[in-house]
Order: sequence, then structure tokens, then C-alpha cells
Amino acid sequence: MILGSYVHGGDVYKNRVTLDFSANVNPFGTPEPVRAAICEAANDVARYPDPYCTALREKLAARHGVLPDHILCGNGAAELIFSFVQALRPKTALLPVPSFAEYETALAAAGVEPAFYPLLREEGFAVTPNILDAITEDTDLLLLCSPNNPTGRSVDRDLLFAILDRCRSTGTWLFSDECFWDLTDADKSVSLAAFLRENDRVLLLHAFTKTYGMAGVRLGYAISKHSALLSRMSETVQPWNVSTLAQAAGLAALDCPDWAGKARALFSEEKPYLIDALQRLGVSVSCGDANFLLLSGVPTLYERLLERGILVRDCANYRGLQKGDVRIAVRTHEENAALIAAISEALHA
Amino acid sequence: MILGSYVHGGDVYKNRVTLDFSANVNPFGTPEPVRAAICEAANDVARYPDPYCTALREKLAARHGVLPDHILCGNGAAELIFSFVQALRPKTALLPVPSFAEYETALAAAGVEPAFYPLLREEGFAVTPNILDAITEDTDLLLLCSPNNPTGRSVDRDLLFAILDRCRSTGTWLFSDECFWDLTDADKSVSLAAFLRENDRVLLLHAFTKTYGMAGVRLGYAISKHSALLSRMSETVQPWNVSTLAQAAGLAALDCPDWAGKARALFSEEKPYLIDALQRLGVSVSCGDANFLLLSGVPTLYERLLERGILVRDCANYRGLQKGDVRIAVRTHEENAALIAAISEALHA
Repeated sequence: MILGSYVHGGDVYKNRVTLDFSANVNPFGTPEPVRAAICEAANDVARYPDPYCTALREKLAARHGVLPDHILCGNGAAELIFSFVQALRPKTALLPVPSFAEYETALAAAGVEPAFYPLLREEGFAVTPNILDAITEDTDLLLLCSPNNPTGRSVDRDLLFAILDRCRSTGTWLFSDECFWDLTDADKSVSLAAFLRENDRVLLLHAFTKTYGMAGVRLGYAISKHSALLSRMSETVQPWNVSTLAQAAGLAALDCPDWAGKARALFSEEKPYLIDALQRLGVSVSCGDANFLLLSGVPTLYERLLERGILVRDCANYRGLQKGDVRIAVRTHEENAALIAAISEALHA
Repeated sequence: MILGSYVHGGDVYKNRVTLDFSANVNPFGTPEPVRAAICEAANDVARYPDPYCTALREKLAARHGVLPDHILCGNGAAELIFSFVQALRPKTALLPVPSFAEYETALAAAGVEPAFYPLLREEGFAVTPNILDAITEDTDLLLLCSPNNPTGRSVDRDLLFAILDRCRSTGTWLFSDECFWDLTDADKSVSLAAFLRENDRVLLLHAFTKTYGMAGVRLGYAISKHSALLSRMSETVQPWNVSTLAQAAGLAALDCPDWAGKARALFSEEKPYLIDALQRLGVSVSCGDANFLLLSGVPTLYERLLERGILVRDCANYRGLQKGDVRIAVRTHEENAALIAAISEALHA
């Protein structure tokens, strides 16, 4: 990035921010063992990283019940979106919107103009069964995000399996971004990892970013039983794309199994608190399953909060959203209470 | 990387290695302030990295006498090779060989089959003035590496400027990899950074990897006065490709200005020592200007050294080289002496 094309949350560098609700990371931040592992690994950075991420892939494979050859690590999940599209080179793609902007950017970098499947505000931005009709034998690729960013909506479990079946019968590749899965209640969101068959044209995307507060480290991974595609993806990037520091951090993070659970327990208290408080203030809330909420109805909310040192995600540049749609992460009670106080003040100023 | 397509040096993970001469990094390793900066930055990785690398680009721009908009940082220099080719999408490319394998891999990922300009063993693998005839108006891109990996040869200063002029007149993009420039005597190798004109179709590649022993961190940068191309490059990758840890490490490294000079002083003693000792042992040495040497003439040298716990770079898979061509990094005297002893033992075993 060098020019002003940045469209995401988390840019606390060019703004004066005391509270950041714009990035959807674990509110408990980075586990101490992860920081310690990074410090320790800093003693070993004169050497090149292991290009195969051997130890990390083995540990991830065991966690997801797949083989190490079914895992590909990347410099953040975002890199894997680009290498997936570069390796697959689809002619056509179906993209539900609004969703994470990098899918469209990665498709554009490969010269692909997707067809859009609109998620409707009046349906709570849910993916509905009529998506099955939109997936045809001419659909090379379907990109799903579940729970979806920025709406927080998961694809219903039964519908997800119906989509998987439909993609199998039409020969459509299914890219399913499960990056928020770890921070979502298991009964609301399902990972397809356990349901993949050999050579399935399915790629699942996961990240350490959100779950373990590692956005600044950059570490994500893809799961697919289509090893040939993973191999092609690895050829679209340099061999040492995952740093020694990221590999060490990832190994340490996987030894902190309660980190996501601790956050989920917090969210089970704090999401109802936030939703109730926001509705009392007359702010409209799209109730999804993830660790963030999509608010709407107050056109200047972003600016009014920024004046008060609080950064939220202005979603006006998402396809299908508009000015006044803002995304907030669910954070600790103290921070959430401060946000509610600031919104109350902003609305009554 | 997931499968067995790795073709580089530095893979100390799958081999039992006590001495690594296969990676051309600063033999003094990583400066202590860089390690300290990584540890410190580990406290701040819950946040996303600065997508613009603002502070680092400003510092690099000052160092090279260009504007911050003329710098683009990457996840290692290797990533920038890929994003450059993706952004430029040349139809034709001219590639002197043997050279670093990632140029060809990056071209292949973009569907480009380069024309090869053979560097001849009998000419000491030098780029000669007849390259000027090979650059025509049909040449979209010339990829140079100076000093070249693995031969160590720099392009002669006057010829380099002639190539620059020729590329300007034919409209050819010049990609010049200067990653080893910091570790090469200034009178042997020239950086084009100070000689670029606005909108010149020239991109220079630099890395922290070798100079500051940061191969495991991943940090490189491109210098170009063609800001539009840098901007397009940034759109071929995710916005957060350079980690918070790498940005902090880079800033700290730039405050260690003697680190490369200290290594150059060592090389001025150790290169003559190695060359003399190798020639006494009857090993042929291509004498370049860089911090590594290309040896030849002993077909099983790689295997015989590996048996002794020493990893060198087997160059048999470089285009234009053959079994028995191996590259060694110049390291500390103690390590170099151990290498010479091992080669002596291997040759007489």
C-alpha cells in the first residue's frame, strides 16, 4: 500500500484514536505465550523461515482432523485470498454482497468481474435458499464468508450443506471464509473442515488474526483436500511468505486453547448488553452471530465518534451498504460501556 | 510452499546442519537493536500493521534520496518480484541466466515465457556490451541482478548506465535487483537510485534480509520514480503484507548504519583468504564482487560437505549451471576455515 486506497478498519495510524472498535480482534488481545514466542524467535531470524511451515501445518492438521498436505499457511489470511484466485483463475465468480472487500480486489487483480448475489437489508442480510438457483454449471467459483463481514450473519447449517452439495454437482469451487468461526458460537456457525471429501473443490480460510489478537503478525491458513490446488497456490507466491516470527507465534497460539473460548464467554454477556443499549438509544442493529455488530440509521455516527477518539468501521464503501452503516467490534465491558456513553452523547449533542 | 518444489539455499530445516553456507546473509547475523525492536513490537500485534508503512518509507526515502512515494515495502524482496510482474504484465521479458530462480517463477505465474540472455562461463558469467543489442523495442522488460546471484558478478558501471539509456530509448522496463548491493564494495557495484528520472520505467529491488540478517523477518522494498506502477503493485497484494514486527525491525535496522560496513570489512579479508585456499585445493572459483562465491569442478562437493554437516547451495538446478557448481556465502574466519578444512578432507577422503 502506498496511496490512499485503504478501505478497511483498524487504521489507527492516521487517526487520533483512544478506543478502536473498527478491527474485529479478540478483545483480550495477544496471549502472553505468543508474545514470548515472538521474542524467542527474534533470536533466530538471521536464518530463512522454514518454507514448508512443517511444524505449524502438522499442528493445524491435527486440530482440524485433516492431513498436513491439506493445509497451506499464508502471510495473513488475506494473502491466501489472492493466491487462491491467482491459482484458480476462474472465468466466472459469484459473490454475495456486502462482504469483505479483498475478495473483489483479488478477483480484479486476476481480471475477473464477479456476479453479485445481493444480501438484502430487509432479510437481515441473510444468505437464503435462493442462492442455490444462482449457482449453475457456469459458476466457476462461489465466495462465501460465514459469519459474514460486516453483517455478522452465518449461513444456516442446513443451507451450508445444501450449498456444498450444489457446488459439487455443478463443479463449482466453493471458497468459504471461516476466519470468524473461532469467535462464533459453535451452534451458530459450522466449519466445513470435517465434512470435506478427497479432491473436493472446496477451500476454507482461517486466520490467527482475530482469534489470537495477531493482526500485526500476519498468519492465516487454508484448508483444502484438493492438494493440487494448494500446490498451485504456493507457486503464486515466494517460498518464504510466512516469517519465522509468525510460525513461532502460531505454534504458541495453538497451545492457548481457551483463548477463543474466553472471548466467546465474554461475547455471550456483552453482545446482549450492546444490542439492548443501542436499541434503547434508537440505533438499528443487525443481529448476527459474530464478534461484531452492524449498526445503521445514524448517518454521521462515524464522524461523531471519531471526534470523541473512538474509531468504528465506516461501511459506506461496502457494496450494498450506505452512509450511516457502521461496524463495531464487541470488546470488554469497560470499552463497550464507553462506546455506549459516547454514542449517547453524540446523539444528544 | 507445501510440496517438494523448493529450490533455494537456507533450508536448514530438513537437513542436519551445523554450518550453513547456503544463505548469503550478513555473517554477523541480526543486530541486537533489531531483536529488541521485534520484542518491543510484540506488545502491539493485536492491532493491524500500518498498511502504508509510513515511518519506514520516510526513513528509506531519506536514505536513498527519493520521495516516500517512490518506495514500496514488501513481505521480503521476493514478494515484490511477484507483485511487480503481476502489476506490469509484460508480454516479453529478457532474463540473463544463470540468476535467482524467483524471477522465472514470478514470470511463469503471470504466464510470461522470458527470452534468456546466456551469461557464459568462459566470460566469467559477466554481462557484456552485447546485451545492448538484445534489448529491442519488442523487449517489455529486462531483469538484471547486480551483483548477480549466484555468480556474484556486478554489471560494470559504464555498461549499467548504457543499459539504462538503452532501456529508456526502447521503452523497456528495467528491473534491477540490488539486494546484495549493501554487502558489495561501492567501487564494484552501483545503485541506480540516485540516477533515476521522474517516470523512469525502472524498479530497483532492495532487502533487509541479507544486510541485516533478517531473512526470518521478511522485509524488502522497491524503489521507483514511476509511482503509478508502485501503486498498481500495491493493489496486487493484501493491504497488510508487511507485519508490525517487520516494520519495527526495519526502522531499528536503519539506525545500525555500520552493520553492512562491518561485514564489508570482514569480506575484504575473508574473500581473498577463501579464494586462495580454494584454488590451492584445486577448486575452481568464479570471482565476483558479492558476499558469496561460485565454486565448480567437484561434482559431489555438495553431498560430501552435507555428510560433514555443512550446507552449501547446490546450483545444479540453475539454468546454465551444472552439477558441481555450488555457491558458498563468505562468513566469519572461523567458519570459513572450518569450510576449507572440510573441503580438504572431502577431496582427500
